[in-house]
Amino acid sequence: MRIPLDKESPTPLYAQIRDYLRASILAGTLPPKTRLPAARQLAADLGVSRVTVESAYADLEAEGLIVRRTGSGSYVSPQAVPAPARQKGEVDWPLWQKELAGAGDLADPDDLDGAGVSLDPGLERGHPAGRPHGAKRPPGFISFTGFGDPRQFRIEDFYAALREVVRRDRVACLEMEDERGYPPLRQSIAHILTSQGIETRPDRVLITSGSQQALAIVTQLLLKPGDTVLVETPTYDWALRLFRAHRLRIVGCPIDAQGMQVEALEPLLQQYHPRLIYTMPTFQNPTGACMSGHRRRLLLELADRYNVPILEDDFAGDLRYEGVAQPALKALDPGGRVIYAGTFSKLLMPGLRLGFVVADGPVYRRLVEIKRVNDLAAGSLIQRALEVYVTVGRYHAHLRRLIHAYRRRRDRLMHGLAEEFPPGWEAAPPQGGLFLWLRLPPGVTATGLAPLARARGVDYAPGTRFFPAPDEGEAYIRLNFAAVPPDEIDEGVRRLGQAVRDALEIRA
Amino acid sequence: MRIPLDKESPTPLYAQIRDYLRASILAGTLPPKTRLPAARQLAADLGVSRVTVESAYADLEAEGLIVRRTGSGSYVSPQAVPAPARQKGEVDWPLWQKELAGAGDLADPDDLDGAGVSLDPGLERGHPAGRPHGAKRPPGFISFTGFGDPRQFRIEDFYAALREVVRRDRVACLEMEDERGYPPLRQSIAHILTSQGIETRPDRVLITSGSQQALAIVTQLLLKPGDTVLVETPTYDWALRLFRAHRLRIVGCPIDAQGMQVEALEPLLQQYHPRLIYTMPTFQNPTGACMSGHRRRLLLELADRYNVPILEDDFAGDLRYEGVAQPALKALDPGGRVIYAGTFSKLLMPGLRLGFVVADGPVYRRLVEIKRVNDLAAGSLIQRALEVYVTVGRYHAHLRRLIHAYRRRRDRLMHGLAEEFPPGWEAAPPQGGLFLWLRLPPGVTATGLAPLARARGVDYAPGTRFFPAPDEGEAYIRLNFAAVPPDEIDEGVRRLGQAVRDALEIRA
Repeated sequence: MRIPLDKESPTPLYAQIRDYLRASILAGTLPPKTRLPAARQLAADLGVSRVTVESAYADLEAEGLIVRRTGSGSYVSPQAVPAPARQKGEVDWPLWQKELAGAGDLADPDDLDGAGVSLDPGLERGHPAGRPHGAKRPPGFISFTGFGDPRQFRIEDFYAALREVVRRDRVACLEMEDERGYPPLRQSIAHILTSQGIETRPDRVLITSGSQQALAIVTQLLLKPGDTVLVETPTYDWALRLFRAHRLRIVGCPIDAQGMQVEALEPLLQQYHPRLIYTMPTFQNPTGACMSGHRRRLLLELADRYNVPILEDDFAGDLRYEGVAQPALKALDPGGRVIYAGTFSKLLMPGLRLGFVVADGPVYRRLVEIKRVNDLAAGSLIQRALEVYVTVGRYHAHLRRLIHAYRRRRDRLMHGLAEEFPPGWEAAPPQGGLFLWLRLPPGVTATGLAPLARARGVDYAPGTRFFPAPDEGEAYIRLNFAAVPPDEIDEGVRRLGQAVRDALEIRA
Repeated sequence: MRIPLDKESPTPLYAQIRDYLRASILAGTLPPKTRLPAARQLAADLGVSRVTVESAYADLEAEGLIVRRTGSGSYVSPQAVPAPARQKGEVDWPLWQKELAGAGDLADPDDLDGAGVSLDPGLERGHPAGRPHGAKRPPGFISFTGFGDPRQFRIEDFYAALREVVRRDRVACLEMEDERGYPPLRQSIAHILTSQGIETRPDRVLITSGSQQALAIVTQLLLKPGDTVLVETPTYDWALRLFRAHRLRIVGCPIDAQGMQVEALEPLLQQYHPRLIYTMPTFQNPTGACMSGHRRRLLLELADRYNVPILEDDFAGDLRYEGVAQPALKALDPGGRVIYAGTFSKLLMPGLRLGFVVADGPVYRRLVEIKRVNDLAAGSLIQRALEVYVTVGRYHAHLRRLIHAYRRRRDRLMHGLAEEFPPGWEAAPPQGGLFLWLRLPPGVTATGLAPLARARGVDYAPGTRFFPAPDEGEAYIRLNFAAVPPDEIDEGVRRLGQAVRDALEIRA
């Protein structure tokens, strides 16, 4: 135990030890029944006499905070009741901390779900010390936010893969993994991508901590503060947050039902000289749009002419409910133009935190280096278990199951909207992906609707979150239909329709 | 299957499909026995007629690349032999890629182990496409590199924790975790830290992907390119790589047996205005030095006076073999001066990739935001399993076991050096940690010794890797004794002694 002692302090050493232990017990950080070190051991650790430690323990015993049993040692008393968290009064933070407190807030105050991440609205709302648990949504609350539905995943199968890997690889599961990712997993990913029309090789695949890390390392490598990134408007909110955190200039190219309006791109390239084009060509988040084949080829041509790398985020490109399959941009790449980011989070399990980058050319090696300085390598055991789990056949079987389930949910949502919503809304059923992008009836705003919806027991992702200039998104909300069981979809849309009516009434 | 088709190409569509499949089969990315989509399905996916797909399949069958069985579909032929990887000739990389190829190399050419990460020297040595497997060290090779010894860890216990968590939490293991980390795990970490003399609370703990990510997010938050970071010289090589990747100016403060020479710090603070002081006060990597109590207090005082945050990397502060326990800097922090980084990698399992930051004040919330834009959150299942596994009592029991084993290894290494090395070397036995820092006999350099050592079947981390100016490290090597079984230590030191003699002979 490395208790901080100040041998030059006027407070005697025994009292310093006693005070540290008392404070820790009352704060609950040394919980009841915790065994304390033997006095002889603690004295040796701290370089003090045994009598000093015995005196500290004797005081604590007298206060009823610890219990001493001959032969079995000293324990925090089972009756020691942690005092309520002390408000430390005003801590005098150093100046550099005060500056951080004043800096612009990256988080969106309307963040209802933090892309499904936040279980603790306390943190979101600026109470970092508050409510670490128990801040989940109330029972019966229906949320059209988040990712895919983890209940579609058979955890038993994954658990069996874990068991197999632990038995097979033993200690290797615990060792540091190849920095590019477990080689057989990269091989599997190359097979799966090829079976999907994106021919690649394991030595062009880099395993990342979810596709968010893929975006982060590409950004770190290719852009510096003040550089321009070109995005679709609207676009993925966590990409915007990443770009804002890097202090980039964000320039948007509008999107329509055929994806990014690539015809409008050339003047933007000429005017802003972006260092990166970030696109989700297939079943875009949040709009669900799928870029036409013509635009895909035109985008590649323009990026080549203006020497701009493309980051293709194909987070749900395989989740196609109808329509013709469009090739990934990466499949059309003549060599090294497109950096491709994929993930297992949406299809399999968000909590797995495994994604991957596919890149060829010198950029691959640089991305590996950036990944390494960021966190060395992805976790070994989870990669190995995923490799055992994800065969090409199993991937496609799981995909078919998801497509079947999510298509029905999409249809149910569209049906519910037609039944339950007051007129004036607009939404095209997406041909794939997880999201429906809904234009609210005139006069209703995403921000204004939010408290009314929550009061009715339902929430959504406000459109403001997906635009570089948030106000442009006030007419829109994004509904995730994939994560919500079918009967909850009906009830959720009913509540949302009521909330929209509430909003219209307030306005009238 | 999203095969890229160009409807305006002079190549007929059936030939485009055939050519894509043929190339993938010959490249091995569609391996033998892979099932191909039914012709009807592929036709629908691609928006072409069924006859088109049938023609492509017929050609491939005639070439012997696929096998068609009525009723059960089409498969890649079991006899299809992947051609050797085609050398694509000169790919015409886009200009931005060529610039990346020319940019300075982050990796150290002397990187023997990449901190134990690299299983593929092919990548290190600039052959990103080469030797993805099978490049491990030859059998019998002894490596004094890497982290702790994963064989000290009982994987059965961890596996039991995994099983318990899957049964208990079911689908929650697959969902996105709280962005700060699984709350009960943060609680456990707070308990363990408090039991070690660092009193903290769960809402000041942020779970990261190893301590490397802790360093990375602190760097991202507090420094921009061109800023100065102050480090100990020598210091942890992956911190240097991280700082170089961020294009920071790195200023070193020398270290001696009592840790960073804090007495020499003030003029450096006045001259260079660093934005961060990075220190490993306890059992420093690579020197093993432990900072005196006096210097710890002085360091805090100076950092406060000059308004510089301290990043304390306590990667192995608990692995103490003898001497008095020194409090962590964080334990002496009056509030918000020190950001503390810890890890489970060294003590438990490097492949786990779980570490943590402890911070208070406004900086905590900012670090959470940076972590989120980088990779959203740490993996759920692994965090939950670790929480079940790591009780305070178990942590201390495991620590005692490690200390017992590693202390013996350290002594064995010191003994071996006395027996096997030619005179002129210098090394102080470290009081804790994983590393012995050895000054080579005069005239022998770390770089010159490396090929001789490898020829003898042993390797080490050269001192050059740990200095901002690599040449300053030529007289030193770092030996990791913790990861090597005792009998291999004897043999490894014998080989290394021979290599040193070889080096002295060449010189003579």
